[in-house]
Amino acid sequence: MSGAPAVAPGSGARPAPAGGEAEPFDAVVIGAGAGGLTVAFGLARIGKRVALVEGGAIGGDCTNVGCIPSKTLLDLAGRLRASGLEPGGDAWTAAAADALAEVRRRRDALREHETAQLEREPGLTLLRGRARLTAGGLVDVVTDGGSRRLRAPRVVLATGARPLRIDLPGLPPELVWTNHELFEAAAPPTHLAVLGGGPIGVEMATAFARLGSRVTLVEALPRLLSGSEPEASAVSETALRRLGVDVRVGVRAVGFEADGGRLLLAATEPGDGDGTARGTGDVDAGPVTAVDRVLMALGRRPAVADLTDVPGGLEALGIRVGRQGIVTDAAHRTGRRGVYAIGDVGERAKFTHAANAQGRRLVRHLTLPWLPLVREGDYPAVTFGEPEVAQIGPPLAALRRTVHPASIVSHRVDLADLDRGLTSGLREGFVLLHARRLTGRLLSATVVGPHAGELVQLLTWAQRRRVSLWQLSRHVVAYPALAEGIKRAADAFVFATLPALPRELAAYLRTRWRRPPADAPTTVTGDAAR
Amino acid sequence: MSGAPAVAPGSGARPAPAGGEAEPFDAVVIGAGAGGLTVAFGLARIGKRVALVEGGAIGGDCTNVGCIPSKTLLDLAGRLRASGLEPGGDAWTAAAADALAEVRRRRDALREHETAQLEREPGLTLLRGRARLTAGGLVDVVTDGGSRRLRAPRVVLATGARPLRIDLPGLPPELVWTNHELFEAAAPPTHLAVLGGGPIGVEMATAFARLGSRVTLVEALPRLLSGSEPEASAVSETALRRLGVDVRVGVRAVGFEADGGRLLLAATEPGDGDGTARGTGDVDAGPVTAVDRVLMALGRRPAVADLTDVPGGLEALGIRVGRQGIVTDAAHRTGRRGVYAIGDVGERAKFTHAANAQGRRLVRHLTLPWLPLVREGDYPAVTFGEPEVAQIGPPLAALRRTVHPASIVSHRVDLADLDRGLTSGLREGFVLLHARRLTGRLLSATVVGPHAGELVQLLTWAQRRRVSLWQLSRHVVAYPALAEGIKRAADAFVFATLPALPRELAAYLRTRWRRPPADAPTTVTGDAAR
Repeated sequence: MSGAPAVAPGSGARPAPAGGEAEPFDAVVIGAGAGGLTVAFGLARIGKRVALVEGGAIGGDCTNVGCIPSKTLLDLAGRLRASGLEPGGDAWTAAAADALAEVRRRRDALREHETAQLEREPGLTLLRGRARLTAGGLVDVVTDGGSRRLRAPRVVLATGARPLRIDLPGLPPELVWTNHELFEAAAPPTHLAVLGGGPIGVEMATAFARLGSRVTLVEALPRLLSGSEPEASAVSETALRRLGVDVRVGVRAVGFEADGGRLLLAATEPGDGDGTARGTGDVDAGPVTAVDRVLMALGRRPAVADLTDVPGGLEALGIRVGRQGIVTDAAHRTGRRGVYAIGDVGERAKFTHAANAQGRRLVRHLTLPWLPLVREGDYPAVTFGEPEVAQIGPPLAALRRTVHPASIVSHRVDLADLDRGLTSGLREGFVLLHARRLTGRLLSATVVGPHAGELVQLLTWAQRRRVSLWQLSRHVVAYPALAEGIKRAADAFVFATLPALPRELAAYLRTRWRRPPADAPTTVTGDAAR
Repeated sequence: MSGAPAVAPGSGARPAPAGGEAEPFDAVVIGAGAGGLTVAFGLARIGKRVALVEGGAIGGDCTNVGCIPSKTLLDLAGRLRASGLEPGGDAWTAAAADALAEVRRRRDALREHETAQLEREPGLTLLRGRARLTAGGLVDVVTDGGSRRLRAPRVVLATGARPLRIDLPGLPPELVWTNHELFEAAAPPTHLAVLGGGPIGVEMATAFARLGSRVTLVEALPRLLSGSEPEASAVSETALRRLGVDVRVGVRAVGFEADGGRLLLAATEPGDGDGTARGTGDVDAGPVTAVDRVLMALGRRPAVADLTDVPGGLEALGIRVGRQGIVTDAAHRTGRRGVYAIGDVGERAKFTHAANAQGRRLVRHLTLPWLPLVREGDYPAVTFGEPEVAQIGPPLAALRRTVHPASIVSHRVDLADLDRGLTSGLREGFVLLHARRLTGRLLSATVVGPHAGELVQLLTWAQRRRVSLWQLSRHVVAYPALAEGIKRAADAFVFATLPALPRELAAYLRTRWRRPPADAPTTVTGDAAR
């Protein structure tokens, strides 16, 4: 990196201030979550002087209020449920409180470990405080002890996202949880209402049902996990009901009566959401009673609010903010020279592993700018419910908007039909592959079942590396593993394609370069928000 | 396939008999296990007339006395152990008997399913009986109803293997189990002695310990799972001891006293086995008492005994039999024209998935003989103990005999150090990769931990497809998954190699084409026999 002026003005209109008192760095990274830490460590380890600014806890959402505590809670709650203790008994109640405390202990241990790593890293300066971009391209940091002004030729915005809260008439604020409050609970609520049936909602409904809470899960769209395949939603809904969760789809929360803890629901109107709600006929919009906690899992919004005091905000600095987040090019550059954005604050995939991958891409790009940038590709998404739902690439409905429907072939194998499914007594779960006709190139894939988050790894490799089902069909799967489902689905493609090569070739040539028809189904796909 | 004379004489010395009464087929497949079924279905589905001869149960060892019942038993025994029932109580005893009965029910259901599939397949004739090759190259089948004589231009030997039994002085035959008898048990034994600490021994020691049996595991070599990395053996041994198994390594069973059920042991002499037994000083060779069942899990031998009545046996027909099984070339051809051997009866990898892969290779070769044969490659091996141990490629000690030790770099990541390890409370398990220096080509890999059998899939793909750790380091792992260990180990390679490219290049050039020194360590590696 050069010693060029800190964050050069976007239009070249305003020169950077002399900045006599500004402390010089090679890079300022704002936000110490998955993305920011990756960039800060990556640059520091190749000898750059990096300032890392964080106003909250080190580790970001993932470590503190996201993946780490949620997966720990799911794991411990699952063990409690399998423990043979009597649900609701004294031993159970104590164990549930223990589980919640253990979640915090493991989270704190990881946070301390990450903080210690940061402090040990030479070349890395950690500043605890809020960072603001100045009009002149410097970074002001307000810390407990005062304020500091930093200058650097590269500024990386990695401030993440914040949970969305809605105002529900009559709902006392002290009954509201988001993922920021829920892991502080000393005991599970008696009756938890979860608003939002996306990944976070499904995972936390699962966790608290396992802990013994009564749980009601409310989703405005006609199905849970609307960013996944409908078949995955169906399995997930069945499994949650089996756990005792009251699943209400096609309804919205419209009010709360503190007396009796009544959560008032209304059927989603056509036109709400993406307009695909089913008719009100088959929807249970009756009120839910005795609710003592409401978890809002309604999605997350990029944390861009306090990034600058300049009138006109980020846009005035030349940094465009879309509905999904800060707009960047493939090199993660914002519209302002020298300013980059990665992770949840950006407009692309909102996952810890996406933030990490983008951080690595950015380090490579800043270090070796002459290396061509490879396509970012799709990111896998896993919901760690019961069963796990894992996916790489868009679900079929979305795929049909970019690839001609007649050019897509789909093959599904049920895990119960595999030998490992038999030995494990599986009754549900599947592997579903969508591929390009004839060439068999894997376009997207979904796995629902035990350890789907591990099973999706080979599919992630294949989808991102343009591997075909011809090749996957020759993969050797250690027997008996559930991964056999991947091979069997690929085999099904081969058996369907091989005897009909002329027909498949004709269909391929006819559709390969054709645009999908405008009336291709565009049903529910929603956001696969982390 | 041509209508050429059935099994042409090896040396051309003896002409095939006129065979007026022999029934003509395109192929005769002997043995309806994993390999034989694959070939029989594969050929029948492309229109060939196939005779499939099986004297025992359809499905072979895997379905009847191998993977299927063993993995089902491991699963059900694990559930019993997690059930919260009091071990040894009446409810427990009933549940353990139920588990053993359920193993048989699922096995029988699969066998019936496979048998029905066979009977539905047009072009496939199932003959229940023993097959013998005649001097003239025909196949005589002795069935209940008499005998039939078959002729075909292709004969495929897929008779599998039989468990090895040893004579132990004083041991009543009715106390002896092999994998053929053990799944018929109505109740778990009180004290099971398992002879042999390979994959079958470790799995069955795990299963019966979970079912509540007292278990003693006896292994003559100084460690369990001697075909795996020593680190894997260590984790496995610790886990078995934690389950309550009395693990005795470096000792052999030398006798039995029926009175008191005393199993007599002796320290393995240097020179026994592969000569690497540790000194007798640290070995517990004291007798084991109150044993009421002895499981022999001492390895398996190719089932070649009854394949012909010709004086001089298979060798006289031109079919060579080595210590590990029937010798074939890469196209699975034996020394006799028209006769092939695949699966456990052959001398290569002894796994269900290897038999399946070889069956597919053979079908492809017979159908499209002009297609070049790709290298067979290594097969993954999984021991489904607690934890699972999965491996692709040779362990380091064996690798060092074919690749110069200075050309191998190794990287290990402990699962407990991964975020998913933290959320799941893992204390043990690891990913260990061995790669070619500089190029990073994956040579072999071991995973020990939960679902290692699924985690090894991506590594299997990478090892068989010559993927490098440079590439694996750019893989995107859905967070938080244990597969992150694979990426982290690959990252460690990149971080070690990148800053030292000149040194690594020099070392690569110095060692890449050099033979390993003759004194490279050749310690215990043994057989990774399923």
